[in-house]
Amino acid sequence: MDNSTAEKGSPGQEQQAAGVGILLQIMMLVLSFVVGHVLRRHKFYYLPEASASLLIGLIVGGLANISDTERSIRAWFNFHEEFFFLFLLPPIIFQSGFSLSPKPFFSNFGAIVTFAIFGTFIASVVTGVLVYLGGLMYLMYKLPFVECLMFGALISATDPVTVLSIFQELGTDMNLYALVFGESVLNDAMAISLYRTMSVVRSNDPSGQNFFMVIVRFLETFVGSMSAGVGVGFTSALLFKYAGLDIDNLQNLECCLFVLFPYFSYMLAEGLGLSGIVSILFTGIVMKHYTFSNLSENSQRFVSDFFHLISSLAETFIFIYMGFDIAMEKHSWSHVGFIFFSILFIAIARAVNVFSCAYLINLVRPAHRQIPSKHQKALCYSGLRGAMAFALALQSVHDLEEGHGQIIFTATTAIVVLTVLLIGGSTGTMLEALQVVGDGHDAHLGEGFEGNNGYVPTSREEDETTGNKLRMKLKEFHRSAASFSEIDRNYLTPFFTSQNGDSEDEEDDPMPSSRRGVYHGHS
Amino acid sequence: MDNSTAEKGSPGQEQQAAGVGILLQIMMLVLSFVVGHVLRRHKFYYLPEASASLLIGLIVGGLANISDTERSIRAWFNFHEEFFFLFLLPPIIFQSGFSLSPKPFFSNFGAIVTFAIFGTFIASVVTGVLVYLGGLMYLMYKLPFVECLMFGALISATDPVTVLSIFQELGTDMNLYALVFGESVLNDAMAISLYRTMSVVRSNDPSGQNFFMVIVRFLETFVGSMSAGVGVGFTSALLFKYAGLDIDNLQNLECCLFVLFPYFSYMLAEGLGLSGIVSILFTGIVMKHYTFSNLSENSQRFVSDFFHLISSLAETFIFIYMGFDIAMEKHSWSHVGFIFFSILFIAIARAVNVFSCAYLINLVRPAHRQIPSKHQKALCYSGLRGAMAFALALQSVHDLEEGHGQIIFTATTAIVVLTVLLIGGSTGTMLEALQVVGDGHDAHLGEGFEGNNGYVPTSREEDETTGNKLRMKLKEFHRSAASFSEIDRNYLTPFFTSQNGDSEDEEDDPMPSSRRGVYHGHS
Repeated sequence: MDNSTAEKGSPGQEQQAAGVGILLQIMMLVLSFVVGHVLRRHKFYYLPEASASLLIGLIVGGLANISDTERSIRAWFNFHEEFFFLFLLPPIIFQSGFSLSPKPFFSNFGAIVTFAIFGTFIASVVTGVLVYLGGLMYLMYKLPFVECLMFGALISATDPVTVLSIFQELGTDMNLYALVFGESVLNDAMAISLYRTMSVVRSNDPSGQNFFMVIVRFLETFVGSMSAGVGVGFTSALLFKYAGLDIDNLQNLECCLFVLFPYFSYMLAEGLGLSGIVSILFTGIVMKHYTFSNLSENSQRFVSDFFHLISSLAETFIFIYMGFDIAMEKHSWSHVGFIFFSILFIAIARAVNVFSCAYLINLVRPAHRQIPSKHQKALCYSGLRGAMAFALALQSVHDLEEGHGQIIFTATTAIVVLTVLLIGGSTGTMLEALQVVGDGHDAHLGEGFEGNNGYVPTSREEDETTGNKLRMKLKEFHRSAASFSEIDRNYLTPFFTSQNGDSEDEEDDPMPSSRRGVYHGHS
Repeated sequence: MDNSTAEKGSPGQEQQAAGVGILLQIMMLVLSFVVGHVLRRHKFYYLPEASASLLIGLIVGGLANISDTERSIRAWFNFHEEFFFLFLLPPIIFQSGFSLSPKPFFSNFGAIVTFAIFGTFIASVVTGVLVYLGGLMYLMYKLPFVECLMFGALISATDPVTVLSIFQELGTDMNLYALVFGESVLNDAMAISLYRTMSVVRSNDPSGQNFFMVIVRFLETFVGSMSAGVGVGFTSALLFKYAGLDIDNLQNLECCLFVLFPYFSYMLAEGLGLSGIVSILFTGIVMKHYTFSNLSENSQRFVSDFFHLISSLAETFIFIYMGFDIAMEKHSWSHVGFIFFSILFIAIARAVNVFSCAYLINLVRPAHRQIPSKHQKALCYSGLRGAMAFALALQSVHDLEEGHGQIIFTATTAIVVLTVLLIGGSTGTMLEALQVVGDGHDAHLGEGFEGNNGYVPTSREEDETTGNKLRMKLKEFHRSAASFSEIDRNYLTPFFTSQNGDSEDEEDDPMPSSRRGVYHGHS
């Protein structure tokens, strides 16, 4: 797994050490899956799978810490953030794009984009500014302003995997599910782009920087990566449409090619100096929406199971690793104040993000499609931090000197563990208190969505004079998002897939089927 | 892919370089699959898939060699034999065990074991002795005797993937297919055990070694690894039999656990200082035979496709890498004599192996089950060298000093490329000349196999007095191999699977279905 730290000389010895390390990791993986399964079967929602994996990592790490073999075990587990970024994150991010079911996603497209792009930007800036002010007021360790913004960006990537799995168990409103899931998928892309932009700003000469350049850099990363991802996705769609691989028992070839494309997209973006994560995410969305339907039926079943399997393994592994790492790593616990106030500040930033964006969205939505207050609270509550924040923090250790990266890493790890354990454990209770679960899957599905394509009925006509201009602008944006569905149906789908536009109704599944269990949605 | 050689400092830069390297590899993989597919579709048997991959690697390597970017491309491609042994070989070896169809394998069990164990031992020793004698006679570079035996061992691992794929295309006698496939699967285990034994003998004080200790070491490696593999396989069978995961839409959990077991077996053996390759091979055989039938139907389909996909990718990648490597590496071409005579000697050793073992087997088999001369020739002809020989040679570079490992590596690479290109390209022609293809799949299937279980009719009664004692011994062995099928049917299958013993007839497929294309055998 990692060749750089192990001493050279005897490859056999080295291989044996690596063997034992990986063996331990596999045993923890197996244990996590089994424990997670047992807990789920007994409907014990206080310890979701992710929390269980984290705890297993914590316990094994703690045991390894006590025993005197620490150094060697540490070496086996020691992989760089490179391993994370090249091998663990891509399948997870691809899968999150791939398992977006297009219909609820597109019908809430405007709201999701608002939360993910605008909201994440607000949350990053609010967190960064608050952390900087906290430093100025001697509440916490003082970081330079740019580094505060980097921290704000990386900590704004949410990962509500636990909340979503409980939504699925208990059943919830489809729009709420789409909002939580869609926001978390897209805000990863936003957070990583913001982080990279700030990182570039920091490493360049700070005097020559102006706000305009920052915006350009950000657009370069975000739009560039997105275009690369979408481009690769469309290329794959055309390839599978015209190569005629869905006949002839060529499923193995078909699957091999399909599986290589996401990685190709990832590496293409990295090779161009863009963000592979953002790219693979959009490749996932495009490949699911267009390429997927060009596959033969058997290959469709296989690839969705394949990506589900790979991402489950990677995700469980990341949670185990995070637990193990927090038990083993020499963290700078002296900065406990930093951790405490960070948690406070990200909670504030999350609330600012959700409620301000929801206010804007409700301004433009018709009365029957308002995001109700309880959904806003549930969305605010779903702000768990996970793999992406951890991976970026791991990278910040390399990016920042003077131990600043170490402080950010420790704070991020603590935030991830706390949010996963506390929010994850209390989700069931909280969601029931908010009365957003158990509505049945399609309670809100049938009504109100038809008006979304094109014309938005202005049933809520009490125009406040102050918000009026803003509202008109937002509505315009809303309409353009809606008209995207039309472009998709009329031009993109017929061009990139072998089906005609109308048949997309078959994908009416309220929750991504591949999340529910292999083959379940297809049998 | 490799962290140790790239300079530290800027992880972003490093990541970008790795990105471009992996991007290139993915593009070559895609190209290989597409070219292989086009060639197969046009029934162009002179350039099978493996050869095409090798050539693509050679060409890209050659181009990279010409361009001035050589150094950086070399760094991207530079992975240790560790990467091979930990990530590329395990899926291939597991898949070869997993795709053994039990029935033809067990009905030719005695012959396969004779070829693989006894024959590979003969071939290794013959090659080693000839190379040593060649060195003494100044025909080629003189290596120490132990190193000659190591070379003999590693070069005796055959990999007839090309031959087998052409067998499948053209259709051949099922017994011949079982012999070629079974021998190549088991002789990998034998070769690696012999190589490791010799490696231990070499590194220890040579004065204290005697023949007895060598045997003990060999048994330790081979039997120990085999037991570990079989043990893990049986454990998995019991787990899946009693865990009740085949209900309840738990296929994802089921698949995750199933996929982790082979790797667990591999790492367990490595951790114990045994051979992970041998272990994972036997885990594959046991898991296919017992665990597999305890899975739910959907998971069965998924896991066989999964392993097929993973091993196809790894195999293609290895051939590309071999081609790339031979174009890039600074080989010691001064030892061209070594290469020439090695090729001669391994051809002799292969012939000695096949014809002497076939003679022994024919002594004991009844007249209607003799291995005909044309099958012997086809078997002898199928002695291509591939991934395993390459991987062991890569390791020998680390194991042997004074450039001896480099000589062995160069010779092995040359042998692999030549056998894959020449034998692979001429297989179609040769097999048709031998009239062993086009017999139809089950021409020989129905007849003559029933007598194999238990009683062997001694229809060929002209007992030569010299061979008599040997024959009686061989027959005893043959009977014990046959009685293994009975133990399997009466005790092992009922104990480890949820089916009763009779139902194994459903697996009557003459060729491993997963080799033929995803889902093909199941639809």
